[in-house]
Amino acid sequence: LATADKARLEEIFEPLHAADLADMLEQVDQRERREILLLARDVFDGEILSELDESLREEAIEFLPDDVVSEAVRELETDDVVDLVEDLDEPQQEAILDALEDADRVAVEQALAWPEESAGRLMQREIVAAPEHWNVGQTIDFLRNQDELPEQFYHVIMVDPRLKPTGYVTLGKLLGAAREIPLTELCEDTFRPIRVTQPEEDVAYAFNQYHLISAPVVDEDDRLVGVITIDDAMVVLDEEHEEDILRLAGVGEATSLSDRVIETTKTRFPWLFVNLITAILASLVIAQFEATIAQFVALAVLMPIVASMGGNAGTQALTVAVRALATKDLTSSNLWRVIKRETLVGLANGLAFALIMGVVGWIWFGQPMLGAVLAIAMVVNLVIAGLAGILVPVSLEKLGVDPALASGAFVTTVTDVVGFFAFLGLAGWMLL
Amino acid sequence: LATADKARLEEIFEPLHAADLADMLEQVDQRERREILLLARDVFDGEILSELDESLREEAIEFLPDDVVSEAVRELETDDVVDLVEDLDEPQQEAILDALEDADRVAVEQALAWPEESAGRLMQREIVAAPEHWNVGQTIDFLRNQDELPEQFYHVIMVDPRLKPTGYVTLGKLLGAAREIPLTELCEDTFRPIRVTQPEEDVAYAFNQYHLISAPVVDEDDRLVGVITIDDAMVVLDEEHEEDILRLAGVGEATSLSDRVIETTKTRFPWLFVNLITAILASLVIAQFEATIAQFVALAVLMPIVASMGGNAGTQALTVAVRALATKDLTSSNLWRVIKRETLVGLANGLAFALIMGVVGWIWFGQPMLGAVLAIAMVVNLVIAGLAGILVPVSLEKLGVDPALASGAFVTTVTDVVGFFAFLGLAGWMLL
Repeated sequence: LATADKARLEEIFEPLHAADLADMLEQVDQRERREILLLARDVFDGEILSELDESLREEAIEFLPDDVVSEAVRELETDDVVDLVEDLDEPQQEAILDALEDADRVAVEQALAWPEESAGRLMQREIVAAPEHWNVGQTIDFLRNQDELPEQFYHVIMVDPRLKPTGYVTLGKLLGAAREIPLTELCEDTFRPIRVTQPEEDVAYAFNQYHLISAPVVDEDDRLVGVITIDDAMVVLDEEHEEDILRLAGVGEATSLSDRVIETTKTRFPWLFVNLITAILASLVIAQFEATIAQFVALAVLMPIVASMGGNAGTQALTVAVRALATKDLTSSNLWRVIKRETLVGLANGLAFALIMGVVGWIWFGQPMLGAVLAIAMVVNLVIAGLAGILVPVSLEKLGVDPALASGAFVTTVTDVVGFFAFLGLAGWMLL
Repeated sequence: LATADKARLEEIFEPLHAADLADMLEQVDQRERREILLLARDVFDGEILSELDESLREEAIEFLPDDVVSEAVRELETDDVVDLVEDLDEPQQEAILDALEDADRVAVEQALAWPEESAGRLMQREIVAAPEHWNVGQTIDFLRNQDELPEQFYHVIMVDPRLKPTGYVTLGKLLGAAREIPLTELCEDTFRPIRVTQPEEDVAYAFNQYHLISAPVVDEDDRLVGVITIDDAMVVLDEEHEEDILRLAGVGEATSLSDRVIETTKTRFPWLFVNLITAILASLVIAQFEATIAQFVALAVLMPIVASMGGNAGTQALTVAVRALATKDLTSSNLWRVIKRETLVGLANGLAFALIMGVVGWIWFGQPMLGAVLAIAMVVNLVIAGLAGILVPVSLEKLGVDPALASGAFVTTVTDVVGFFAFLGLAGWMLL
């Protein structure tokens, strides 16, 4: 690569999509990345910058000459600039804002004034609106006379004289209808304005639930201030899912393969630390039964099975519950039914595995009573696992804590403690 | 509810979106659901049927009178009918197909002839295409003269005389341009045809990666056969994510809160059974050290900590790897770097927790050597966890097994076995 010359590199890059170029930059190491950036400077543009992972984006902005970055940013639409700068440090943000034309700079600053992760940050400010009393012909003539229409728009939004959106017409309907037909006749019933302060996660939910393609954004006075399109909602939905998956696995927020070792270590440490506390709590339970174990070492061999089965059953139940909360399928109206269901599922699988492990324990150590202890502990722990798997995430959600983030630790604590306690306690009582 | 009369129920339901009505039906129990379906029969339509969870959909089709179902289905676009019937049993599928008009029936049957989860199942067959040599005026006149345009279309696809798509124009550009401008001048560079046999998961990836709004679908001869729009891709993306989350947690495929207890128990059993085998393997390792534990019961108290920390570190690494594989961020070109990174992260966190647990073990049991054993075992297991967390999913992917489905069991087996073996083995060697 070091010997590849500029022209050849540009020849390779030219036909590629910015997203693929960004992926390629993410996959090489830092030294190679810098060489490529320097050599292929002329191909580098704002879109590639937008597509890069956050950490690499900061690296690239720092590394590249200021004029290359400025030029790259000036090509972007304002909502992409907002997305680009909102996570940057103050000085980097300033430098980029300074590179923008005045009008764009104001637009970006206004967007940044809205709360983080709100509809206001997500929306584009380029709106295509028409008075509600217009007909198709007037609307098309108006569109033809615009100097510049937004890159992305799928509806013409109808507004009243106070700029309040009252409906919208798809471009398909507009193109298919005769010129004299009034807009009101073509109006869509999927119309759902979004408030500018609404969290972006609710926006993504609305797009997914109601199959929206675009939605007008209104301020506190119900006045039209922007538009959100489905591609932005899709990015948010994708991020929310990614976040949920990583949080459920105890990997911090934003993470990517191009993060450095030290950063990755730091994001993973806290969850491992929480798990250590959980594990120590479980050990304290075991410590209560040291005398029992000393008399009967087979207990030490079998006890991890009970705890592990409980942990897994709990993870199953909590994952389903966390997803159901996220998709608003689990509400107060069906909570009791779901709790009953999880308890019954825990009982059913508990009985199945009690049978299996009862026989295994009996045959392995030749003691029917050991099998019985294992079986009873298994039923108890799987029922508790089901209950904890639903009650913990629901309680966390009620307390305003993200259930995806913290449920795992709590549920595992419960199943470890109950598992060891039930198994060793019963053993002490029934075997000795 | 039993006393609520039909008129009142319909009054409540009328303004609700089909998706919300379906959610409501999912949240009540079976008896209430049947009462509502019977009372509000006139509000019930194809869209509600489309929005219902799979299991409830089958229940509703079985329960409702045939003529209500037939009428509901006839209202739907053919791609929604495909989505509705593809998972139904043969007799239910037949009954619904029979209710369709001939042309629709043929369209649905053609779609069902494509492989499951392929672009052919996902696409709509209603296409808006124009010869590539047309100008804006010709295209708009053509659209105005159509009897019926598809509900959803965002581009006019340009085709050559052999019906091969050569580009597309957004409706926004079409509306903003003067009548005499040729379509070729307005052509978008995001144009990416999709092959009809491509898996729907690749389709969703392409929409997400290249920010597509719609994409033409072509057959083996490159002829235009349909269109996929972003809302369909969003549904697939959502489902793929959901599937990954559930698979990572060891909850079978399709699952929902409205599945019955027996079904839920059955879907969760296999993974718990795999986990049982894992746990028994770990127990077999412990059994090798029964004599060591009998001499020194503190080992039984501390050993779950090492295994549990390894399991969690492994889950973190494997989740990141599984996601990176799904988003195509992890490829053969950066595999070695990622392996090195995971090993270093494991080493760094291993050393951190070795320090913590070394001190805890020393203080708790008053034996510095016990602390040392705990510390060394922790480093070993966290490094192995990082390695297994990346190597297991990558190997499964290479073997054609979904890494989200099976990685967890393998990684936990490795970390349990290594954790117990390292800790108890070192203890037997250093302490006795």
